[in-house]
Parts: sequence; structure tokens; C-alpha cells
Amino acid sequence: KEKRIALLPGDGIGPEVVAEGVKVLKAIEQKDKNLSFTFEQFPWGCEYYLQNGKMMDDDGLSQLQHFDAIYLGAVGYPGVPDHVSLRDLLLKIRKGFDQYVNLRPVKLLNERLSPLKGKAAKDIDLLVVRENSEGEYSGEGNWLYKGEPEEVVLQTGVFSRKGTERIIRYAFEEARRQGKSLTSVSKANALNYSMVFWDSVFEEVKRDYPDVETASYLVDAASMFLVMNPERFDIVVTSNLFGDILTDLGAAIAGGLGLATGANVNPERTYPSMFEPVHGSAPDIAGKGIANPLAAIWSVAQMMDHFGEEEWGRKIVSTIQQIMDEDEKLTPDFGGEATTAEVGDRFIKLLTS
Amino acid sequence: KEKRIALLPGDGIGPEVVAEGVKVLKAIEQKDKNLSFTFEQFPWGCEYYLQNGKMMDDDGLSQLQHFDAIYLGAVGYPGVPDHVSLRDLLLKIRKGFDQYVNLRPVKLLNERLSPLKGKAAKDIDLLVVRENSEGEYSGEGNWLYKGEPEEVVLQTGVFSRKGTERIIRYAFEEARRQGKSLTSVSKANALNYSMVFWDSVFEEVKRDYPDVETASYLVDAASMFLVMNPERFDIVVTSNLFGDILTDLGAAIAGGLGLATGANVNPERTYPSMFEPVHGSAPDIAGKGIANPLAAIWSVAQMMDHFGEEEWGRKIVSTIQQIMDEDEKLTPDFGGEATTAEVGDRFIKLLTS
Ligand SMILES: CC(C)[C@H](C(=O)O)[C@@H](O)C(=O)O
Ligand SMILES: CC(C)[C@H](C(=O)O)[C@@H](O)C(=O)O
Repeated sequence: KEKRIALLPGDGIGPEVVAEGVKVLKAIEQKDKNLSFTFEQFPWGCEYYLQNGKMMDDDGLSQLQHFDAIYLGAVGYPGVPDHVSLRDLLLKIRKGFDQYVNLRPVKLLNERLSPLKGKAAKDIDLLVVRENSEGEYSGEGNWLYKGEPEEVVLQTGVFSRKGTERIIRYAFEEARRQGKSLTSVSKANALNYSMVFWDSVFEEVKRDYPDVETASYLVDAASMFLVMNPERFDIVVTSNLFGDILTDLGAAIAGGLGLATGANVNPERTYPSMFEPVHGSAPDIAGKGIANPLAAIWSVAQMMDHFGEEEWGRKIVSTIQQIMDEDEKLTPDFGGEATTAEVGDRFIKLLTS
Repeated sequence: KEKRIALLPGDGIGPEVVAEGVKVLKAIEQKDKNLSFTFEQFPWGCEYYLQNGKMMDDDGLSQLQHFDAIYLGAVGYPGVPDHVSLRDLLLKIRKGFDQYVNLRPVKLLNERLSPLKGKAAKDIDLLVVRENSEGEYSGEGNWLYKGEPEEVVLQTGVFSRKGTERIIRYAFEEARRQGKSLTSVSKANALNYSMVFWDSVFEEVKRDYPDVETASYLVDAASMFLVMNPERFDIVVTSNLFGDILTDLGAAIAGGLGLATGANVNPERTYPSMFEPVHGSAPDIAGKGIANPLAAIWSVAQMMDHFGEEEWGRKIVSTIQQIMDEDEKLTPDFGGEATTAEVGDRFIKLLTS
């Protein structure tokens, strides 16, 4: 099976970590006769913006359209406002390619990595299914009476029947497939339109899945439970903004952004899906060769799952676990002295041996 | 000084914990010749709703108008949808009395209480200044094409110049008064109207406070930092929804809702301010006499601060600390066997001895 992968290394440490992910893909290709990957690289990001006044080519989406996957490094750089760099590249792809599912595993690999007392690896093992195409991030709003005392700014979340139902249904399917419970996170007691709607759709879809155990929490309570009782959660389905917050919180309890990955999935495969580490471009350490590539490598595991190569997906995650368990030769963010490339090389050795 | 206090015990364990707070107020009155309190109790809440079809009297706000403070227990009960019970009582008072500042201290009293590894009490000591009157909670929205495939639900956050500037200014004043740093939490990279506006007002107001050190975080990053590096935060200013999430998270890292309090303040004192434990009505343990009253008692400390009786405020907090340090005679939520009244009695003995 040949898979065409579009590389968007992006800004800061993005290119450094994507390089390691590509090394991993090439190593897999070497090992597995059934798989072959071709790569094409795109220079889009903040530097491109500073030179060309745009984050990506005008026909960027159609250039990416025919790939099997997009592998993104990181976006964002001092001097380019975040709401430009992200809206015009990351969010544009998520939305343009209808990648309406954002899958973020929260999995503690080793007790030592969690900032929480007394949590074993098995206590922190959940999957957040985040709505990724609309909701609070719809970008709709208005800015009225600018500069006047009566100035007022409106930000409108848009929750469509289609958008809400499909993400909830996806999460139920995933819960059924994995034989796990599903928790919906919302906030109907204060968000009296959007979240009342969310809850009603959840209740409705639930009727089709009597075999799936469910729970429903308010986002404030869910945040608290993630810290106090993370073992409560298996699969979690939630809105775009809440998913953003809960997955960073998930990263925190599982050892930080150094190990957090996200897949932006178009389940119908009408468009390519996108795989990215959750961390940012970390301009302070960019170019030094010390960025931790493990989150970007975990993104490759998600890509493999998406290609139907779950065996490789599992193998990548267990190899990351092995590296973290052995606790030597890690990058400075984990207290080690290894370079980005050294970690990548060691990873490949373990993966392919 | 005579202070008139309106009691709204509300639902579930509300009456039980408010009773202890009232005992504390009476004990203070006995000790302090300069202070006297009068109480009037209001029966509003979910039971009232089930009997009368409304959460509070139609002229409820004008009945409360002339009190010096409102002391609320908890609102919410099975059978009454949250978005009714809360919007029509709690949120109505917050909004109707322009209690636009929600002050929530996050203070770890004892290392043992935190779920976080290696955090000493001094590492977790912050104050969240939450916008409490508008923003995401404005209740504006629309529900279109109900039941049709094109059904779409809109939820609009309303951020006024006045509402945004006054909360940020309040927080800067508080930071200056306490000689502490101020962190703004927003999300401009995704919420392209409201949070871009929030950030611009923050930058603007900052110019009037060159002596205050500031930081600005995205809400996802802030959630992560609260768990990984809580010592980064002193005073935090943020929007209504983000404040809701961050303060529950704050409660989590400081030992749970059993010790979390919130003051809903109208700084101009045109209207009464309201003091409440953050926990809910806990119907499962209501009526058993085992609810933990310490959060409600901490609310009394905030009430004292608001009355200008900071000495009593500090004394109450340090007495709670003493009780937690001694770690005996606590309620079941803290692993003890004491009743609500026993904890209250012990508290008063320590406070007044
Ligand atoms: C960069 C930002 C727009 C983005 C988001 O909030 O979705 C990021 O935080 C993430 O979680 O992928
Ligand atoms: C009950 C609910 C509406 C409320 C809120 O979200 O403000 C509560 O969670 C709080 O934090 O006081």
C-alpha cells in the first residue's frame, strides 16, 4: 500500500521533530514490505507569512487534497499574532478538510511522569474525542462601536445538528468498538442554548447504543475529576473549546506536552486527515536540536491507526513507553541530555529490533 | 456596626452548612462589641420551585436589595433542570445585583491535601478574579430549525467595553494592593472576537499599572500550568466561563470543593454582595448531618473582608487551617467521622479561644 504524506513542518521546533517522525516512517517502510510512503514538503507557516503575507498558498487546500495524510509539526512564531497564524493554517485545514474529529489519547506511560500523587499508569488512560470543526471555534462574531464607551464584542458559537450529532455518534461507535464507557462533557447550566442542545443530542444518540455505559459531566466538574479521579474516564466526547482545555489538562496529568498527540480526522476519508503533536513551536529552543520528538512520533502512531495499521500504532506507543521506562537518553525537557536526533535514532533501533 | 444578612440556604446540604456559618457569625458578634448581625431567611430554591413554579419571588431582588450581604448555601436538586435552578436564582442575583467580580481564593492549607506531588502550601496560593456578569454566560443565543436536519444552535458571548475593563481594572487594583503579579487568561488564538478584545483591553489597562508585573496565558496552557506549576500564579483575571473552569481546577489542586469559597462582589456597593461555598447541594448526603461546613465558613471570612473586618477574615482562614492541620474530627469527605455540627462547634471554640 502506498501512502502519500504531506509534510507541514511549520515553525520553531516543528521541522526538527517532524524530521524524526519521517525517520520513523522510513524505518517502518523498510521493515514492512506491504507499506510504502512518499513525502512532499510544504513551506507554509509563519516565516512564509512574513515573506508572502499569507500562511499558506491561496490554493493550499487543493494542493493538499490528494494526500493520504498530513503530518504537521507546529505553527506559531513571535511577531505573527496567533489568531492569524493558527486561524489561517491549522484551523483552516481542520475546517476545510472537515476534520471534525480530534482524537487525543491521554495515557500515562509511567507513574513517575504524572504530577499526581498515587496514580498508576492504568489510572490515567482515556481518549478525548473533541469536536473539531465548529462550536465555540466557528469564528463568528461582531465588534461594535469600536473605541466608544458602548463598545461591545460578540463571539458566537455555532452548534449544528449535523456537527453535534456526528461527533457524538463517532464517540459512541468508538466506545462500542473498544467496549468502554463514554462520558459527555458540557455546561448546560450556564450555556443555555448550545449546551442544552448538546445534552439533548447526546441523550438522543444514546438510545441507539444501549450497550454503552455513559456519564455526563459539567466542564468545571470534569476538569476537577481529571485531576482528582482520572480513573473515572474512558472515552470522553466534548465540544471544540472544552476539548482544547481538557486535553491540555490531560497532557498535564500524563506528564506534559512532551508526550501529547492529536489526530484531526475526517472519518469519511473524503479529505486527508492531519496528525500533529499538541505542543507548540517553542521558539526559545528552536534550532538547538534538543526538542523532544516523542509527541511527534506518537502522532505517527495515530497515522498508522488511521491507515489501518494498528499493529504498528501499538508498537510505536509501546516503544515510547519503553524509552520512558528506561529513563535514560531523554531530551532536556525530561531532565536528560540527549539531542532530538539521538532520541529518534534510539527509538528506531528499539522499534525495529 | 450593624450588618443585615440575607440567608439563602437553598437546597440539599445548603441549609446544613449555612447553619454553621451563622453560628460562626453569632460567635463573632459575641466576641466583638463593634459588630452586630441580623438575619433574615428566604426559602427560595428548588423545593420552592416545585411548589410555586418559580425559583424565587417575582420581586425577589427588591426584597434582597437592602441587605448588606447575601449568604447562599447551595442551589440545585434532582428533578429541576440545572439551567432553570441556576439561571433563575444564582445567576439572576449575580447579574441583577451587578456582582461583576467573583473572587475565588485557591489556597493550599496543608501539603497533605493536594493531589499534586511535591507541592508545599506556599506553592498553591492564588486568587482568581472571575468576570461574573456577562461574557460567555450572557444567556444570549438562538435555536433555529428545531428538529429539522438544518437545525442550528447559536450561543453568543457578550463582552462589553465596560464589563471587560472594570473586571481587569479591579484585578490590577487588587494586584497592586497586595503587591502581587497579575495573570490574564484568555484564548485569542481561537476566539477571534471576544478574546482578541479581552487581550487588547488588558494591554490598555496595563499601561496604568506599570508597577504590576503581568503575564498572559491561553486558557488551555493555564489549565496545564495550574497542575504542573501552580506557583506561577498570584492574582489571575479571566472571563466568566474560564474562571468557572479554572476555579474548579484550583479547588482540585487545593484539596477539593470541601474548602472552596466564592464571593460575588458588587464593588460599588450599590447592591449587596453574595457569599457562597462553591460546592453544590450534594443531594446524596443531604439531611444526614455529615456535610462539611468549612467551605461555607470560609465564605464567612470573605464576607468579613467585604465588611472591612479583614482581621476576622484572616482569623477564620487560619482557624480552618488549624483544623485541617490537626486532622482529627473532620467530616467523612476528609475521611473523618465528625458531623457537620461537631466541626462547626469545634471551629467556634478554636476561633474564640
Ligand atoms: C493553537 C490552537 C488554536 C489550538 C486549539 O485551541 O485548538 C491548540 O491549542 C490545540 O489544542 O490544537
Ligand atoms: C452553577 C453554575 C452556574 C456556576 C457557574 O458555572 O458559574 C458554578 O459552577 C459556579 O462556579 O459558581
